[in-house]
Amino acid sequence: MQYFAQKLKVFSDEFNSKLKDLFPLPEGNEKKVVEAMYYSVANGGKRLRPYLVTKTAELFDVSADRAFITAAALECLHTYSLIHDDLPAMDNDDLRRGKPTCHKQFDEATAILAGDGLLTYAFELISSKKNEFSENVKCRLVNLLAQGAGSFGGMVAGQMLDLDSEKNENVLFPEMIIKRIEEMKTGRLLRFACEAGAVMGNASQDKYNSLVMYAKKIGIAFQIADDVLDVEGKEEEMGKTLGKDCEQNKLTFVKLYGLDKAKQMAKDYIYEAKDALAIFGAEANDLYDLADFIIERKN
Amino acid sequence: MQYFAQKLKVFSDEFNSKLKDLFPLPEGNEKKVVEAMYYSVANGGKRLRPYLVTKTAELFDVSADRAFITAAALECLHTYSLIHDDLPAMDNDDLRRGKPTCHKQFDEATAILAGDGLLTYAFELISSKKNEFSENVKCRLVNLLAQGAGSFGGMVAGQMLDLDSEKNENVLFPEMIIKRIEEMKTGRLLRFACEAGAVMGNASQDKYNSLVMYAKKIGIAFQIADDVLDVEGKEEEMGKTLGKDCEQNKLTFVKLYGLDKAKQMAKDYIYEAKDALAIFGAEANDLYDLADFIIERKN
Repeated sequence: MQYFAQKLKVFSDEFNSKLKDLFPLPEGNEKKVVEAMYYSVANGGKRLRPYLVTKTAELFDVSADRAFITAAALECLHTYSLIHDDLPAMDNDDLRRGKPTCHKQFDEATAILAGDGLLTYAFELISSKKNEFSENVKCRLVNLLAQGAGSFGGMVAGQMLDLDSEKNENVLFPEMIIKRIEEMKTGRLLRFACEAGAVMGNASQDKYNSLVMYAKKIGIAFQIADDVLDVEGKEEEMGKTLGKDCEQNKLTFVKLYGLDKAKQMAKDYIYEAKDALAIFGAEANDLYDLADFIIERKN
Repeated sequence: MQYFAQKLKVFSDEFNSKLKDLFPLPEGNEKKVVEAMYYSVANGGKRLRPYLVTKTAELFDVSADRAFITAAALECLHTYSLIHDDLPAMDNDDLRRGKPTCHKQFDEATAILAGDGLLTYAFELISSKKNEFSENVKCRLVNLLAQGAGSFGGMVAGQMLDLDSEKNENVLFPEMIIKRIEEMKTGRLLRFACEAGAVMGNASQDKYNSLVMYAKKIGIAFQIADDVLDVEGKEEEMGKTLGKDCEQNKLTFVKLYGLDKAKQMAKDYIYEAKDALAIFGAEANDLYDLADFIIERKN
């Protein structure tokens, strides 16, 4: 695992240095919103989603360089969701990866706009000339990303359902609801990461399906691991306030199943995720390692 | 003008009835966000942007039916900007077109998500199979809309600069700043409306340029008219609280130039806008009428 964490670090260092070029500061006073966007996007993060885009693309001989714009677009979109989730009207978080959240560092209006700006920029990047794929591929990427991030079964729907479940003391079928929430809220962007690699690589349908299955499994495992870390993690390693899920009456896997069962479930999902990659053989080693890393990480 | 208002009403009635089909309610509790999206998008509005998309497309023999998805996407994006602008951290408005704003009707978290959902949906719609154009056209539309709505010279940048100018008592070169704000904040989406028609219609470069020029001129005139209405309009006709610009120390054309000069400026811009359409002759009659309507409207 130490080895993989190192590998991810090398990837994210390179990714970060290229990301900077995508945020040139405007000259006027509107530059504040670009500063806020870059502040949040540059603030650490393991870059798991860009890594997934890149590694799935490489399965089809699409280079990391060619996959970069799509990977960056996804990270912009992910960051927008964090900025808006942290807002006072939502999760009301002051810290993100050990630093003030966007609305704390700037102000609430700027944070709302920075989120809007990043969401918009994701689609601008994918559809731009910088992204060296056919219009056909770019249009599919835009559509898949918008579906994954949207209100009809996508990330926004997941966040809405999550907020709704917090308010209801007695959710019916909580085991079903929590799976739906996480499939939409966390799962859909991870799924997009894998779909994007397959679309850029013009994958066959069975390879496409295998990657989607892998993404779905690691998606739930990822969320279970997050819930476990909220109870067992160390604040200084996580860079955020822990124990908030419980306080905010959030539906979590740990609350529903208990710590031991939740950990076992995460392991099972990772086992199934790796199983889904059989079609790729050893070519998918990085994706196997990533799957293990998801439940073994400390932050 | 009465005649044109009637024409616009016929258009918007048809547009509204088709729009409804784009918002099917999900079965789960996440439907709340779709309800909030549709609540805001259905809430009146003159549908000027969809009308512009449709009428510019018709100049190139693209039917209203074919232009519909792009027109609807633009209205979704416009509505998201209104929902987020109305939030307490931004303009803090309780009324929009005579009805409670989204965060008043629902709650703040839902309003943030509804805005996010509409922004995302705009890109989903344009890139979807429902939009019957080539991938090439759809990719260009996505890119133009994202640029127009974004943080690098687009609508988000305009909103940021507007907020910034409110906070600064002594803005240097206010005449220049207000023009930059409005070109980005209001102007860019009106420009997209015209660009979209030209792109869908595969317009020649000179016709494209003429429409962009027209859009720029009506954009500023539109904003000046808004500033005039904030002073001279009737609240019951406008459906919102008036006089807020002054209260919030907003930079307005009326504040900078006085009422009479501002009105004359708007007229001059409309004259120039119509001039830009010469290349289309009588084919562009609806666009001439729209230009006049922009400064003669009462809401």
